[in-house]
Amino acid sequence: SSDSWHFHFSRTSGSLCQELTKQLGEMQNVGAIHFFCNYEESRGNYLVDVDGNRMLDVYTQIASIPIGYNHPSLMNVMSNPNNMSAFINRPALGILPPENFPEKLSESLLSVAPAGMSRVQTMACGSCSNENAFKAMFIWYRNKERGHNIPSEEDLSSCMINQSPGCPDLSILSFMGGFHGRTMGCLAATHSKAIHKLDVPSFDWPVAPFPKLKYPLEEFTRENAQEEARCLEEVEDLIVRWRQKGQPVAGIVIEPIQAEGGDNHATPDFFKKLRNIARKHGCAFHVDEVQTGCGVTGKFWAHEHWEMDDPADVVSFSKKMLTGGFYHKDELQADKVNIHTLNRVFARDKGVLMGGCGDKSIRLRPALVFKEYHAHLFLNVFNDVLAEY
Amino acid sequence: SSDSWHFHFSRTSGSLCQELTKQLGEMQNVGAIHFFCNYEESRGNYLVDVDGNRMLDVYTQIASIPIGYNHPSLMNVMSNPNNMSAFINRPALGILPPENFPEKLSESLLSVAPAGMSRVQTMACGSCSNENAFKAMFIWYRNKERGHNIPSEEDLSSCMINQSPGCPDLSILSFMGGFHGRTMGCLAATHSKAIHKLDVPSFDWPVAPFPKLKYPLEEFTRENAQEEARCLEEVEDLIVRWRQKGQPVAGIVIEPIQAEGGDNHATPDFFKKLRNIARKHGCAFHVDEVQTGCGVTGKFWAHEHWEMDDPADVVSFSKKMLTGGFYHKDELQADKVNIHTLNRVFARDKGVLMGGCGDKSIRLRPALVFKEYHAHLFLNVFNDVLAEY
Ligand code: FES
Repeated sequence: SSDSWHFHFSRTSGSLCQELTKQLGEMQNVGAIHFFCNYEESRGNYLVDVDGNRMLDVYTQIASIPIGYNHPSLMNVMSNPNNMSAFINRPALGILPPENFPEKLSESLLSVAPAGMSRVQTMACGSCSNENAFKAMFIWYRNKERGHNIPSEEDLSSCMINQSPGCPDLSILSFMGGFHGRTMGCLAATHSKAIHKLDVPSFDWPVAPFPKLKYPLEEFTRENAQEEARCLEEVEDLIVRWRQKGQPVAGIVIEPIQAEGGDNHATPDFFKKLRNIARKHGCAFHVDEVQTGCGVTGKFWAHEHWEMDDPADVVSFSKKMLTGGFYHKDELQADKVNIHTLNRVFARDKGVLMGGCGDKSIRLRPALVFKEYHAHLFLNVFNDVLAEY
Repeated sequence: SSDSWHFHFSRTSGSLCQELTKQLGEMQNVGAIHFFCNYEESRGNYLVDVDGNRMLDVYTQIASIPIGYNHPSLMNVMSNPNNMSAFINRPALGILPPENFPEKLSESLLSVAPAGMSRVQTMACGSCSNENAFKAMFIWYRNKERGHNIPSEEDLSSCMINQSPGCPDLSILSFMGGFHGRTMGCLAATHSKAIHKLDVPSFDWPVAPFPKLKYPLEEFTRENAQEEARCLEEVEDLIVRWRQKGQPVAGIVIEPIQAEGGDNHATPDFFKKLRNIARKHGCAFHVDEVQTGCGVTGKFWAHEHWEMDDPADVVSFSKKMLTGGFYHKDELQADKVNIHTLNRVFARDKGVLMGGCGDKSIRLRPALVFKEYHAHLFLNVFNDVLAEY
């Protein structure tokens, strides 16, 4: 490769690093690899590479290390036998949460909930946090349009084949330079680098300019105010145009500080006015704090710098928070009428847990340690249940 | 709630379960909760709930427990201090992998790679595995269309605002009853339950019927063969129609056994012919083994039952595999020309690691344990670097 970085790499990387890059290149694309690390030897602010170089890390796994490498408190959490079973048993939290889940949520995530938000949904990464926040905004918007949350027959049948009205022509307004993740929904709101988006089909969603402020700020007060006003005007214009196109803006998503897009800032005044535009036009307001949350700006959440009573409808997080998820207002709670409940067959009061699927099937997905003995046990219970029905 | 399941729940669940459901209901939607579990007390094939009920689990966290609850081997892996630092330091594997990453990949995931696949990309869950597999197929298809992997200026500028040709009008063909995840890309290929899709915007992608076989199979050989032929005909018809609409099918995605959609099977003959249709029309063939992989069908991968030399171009996995990801053929390797490399500033040979962002910015995202002392250290190095440039 001829790019500048590889040149640099060859100047500074030892032979072990080069050998490992070659090995990994047989299995994966290594185009983005910086170097290989020795995580055992890394401590606090210092990352150690495989060639023994120790360096001050001001990037921290793309802003994901809250309190430094190998912090003893995190080591203790990991090695605590009470936590171990949660790690290895992969609880499906939405259906079979552990006993301490409500307590853990209220003691950890909800103890730092943004203003006005009493509900939190946990997710596994920044992308699914944003994807599911988008979905919550779409559902909220459609319920508002319908006046209730009961889907029509047409909603139900059309959604199965990706067509409206069941899959509605709604959009999310995002900002040039924004980054919200790389799964296809988030990616449609991401506009930082072409390489992330190139060749991937997308949604026709509106993209507003993010203010380009001039520094030092105190010398360009007037120009910067004009620039922010221009961007806000464009936002309103896009909301109106997309409504006219039949693809109303259900939500606006923005980072308090653009990260991948170039570490771009705007004033609290800009965000206040943007939030008001969202309210005025009936769009949900989603603040993506994946890279800015967890104390890194001097407040727990970066949006606290805006000093608003009602800063957002949805706030997503991940990275330093060590789990993903999103907070939201009560009204963003998706209380869908549960359409398929009759399909579940339960034998739990006889000591068997099984799953349903489709309209009328049960699903057996035992572990690989399931033996003939267990099959007999299951069949006995199942026969009993069938006899009762 | 008035549905049948809640009725059942109240018959069998103890007061602790009800109390916890109420608590969690203050923070999250609890509409899908079955009951709360005591994961510490669960063992092997038996799940224990918070009220002390022990039950044979044939569902295993939606097919995610490979060798039973709290298996000692997994406990050992988790408590091994050499693994601990990988768990708590959240390595950004794409840029800063640990030293043992190539070895781990080749000893674990690649040792069970499907036929013809030497490359594997790790992911965090089934959804991002499929999302990224779709993206790999789109990129592969576009490179094939272009005849090379060098994007035009128009590709680069149009993709930043979600428009073609940069974000091309390509589609993924999927099957009615299929389930591939719930982020927006996967969801456009998912057609199992309306509640998963309702109110979420989607892509106009083709949906083919999955064979509905009659049982016992040996009594309905002729009918079932006709049913499979009908579905295959419809697949070809959809590929042609979507090409004519200007939204060519870049890939076909299918589960070897439909799971959420109702535990639906088809014959090896169906899959062989489907794979050949994909090849004939230049579509990539993606087998989603998220629920069927890791030995659960008697072979390591369910597609091995088809006994084909070239069963797929992409195979995705998660759940029992304990990590997500996808295998793919060499030709599906996205070797995009790296467009933004000049924007990186490196001070690594002076002992500092920092990040780039946007076109010309550096990004400082230190940990919260960063002190004034570290800031001085950074500034000294940074001044040196600037002096050199
Ligand atoms: S999308 Fe897979 S972990 Fe978030």
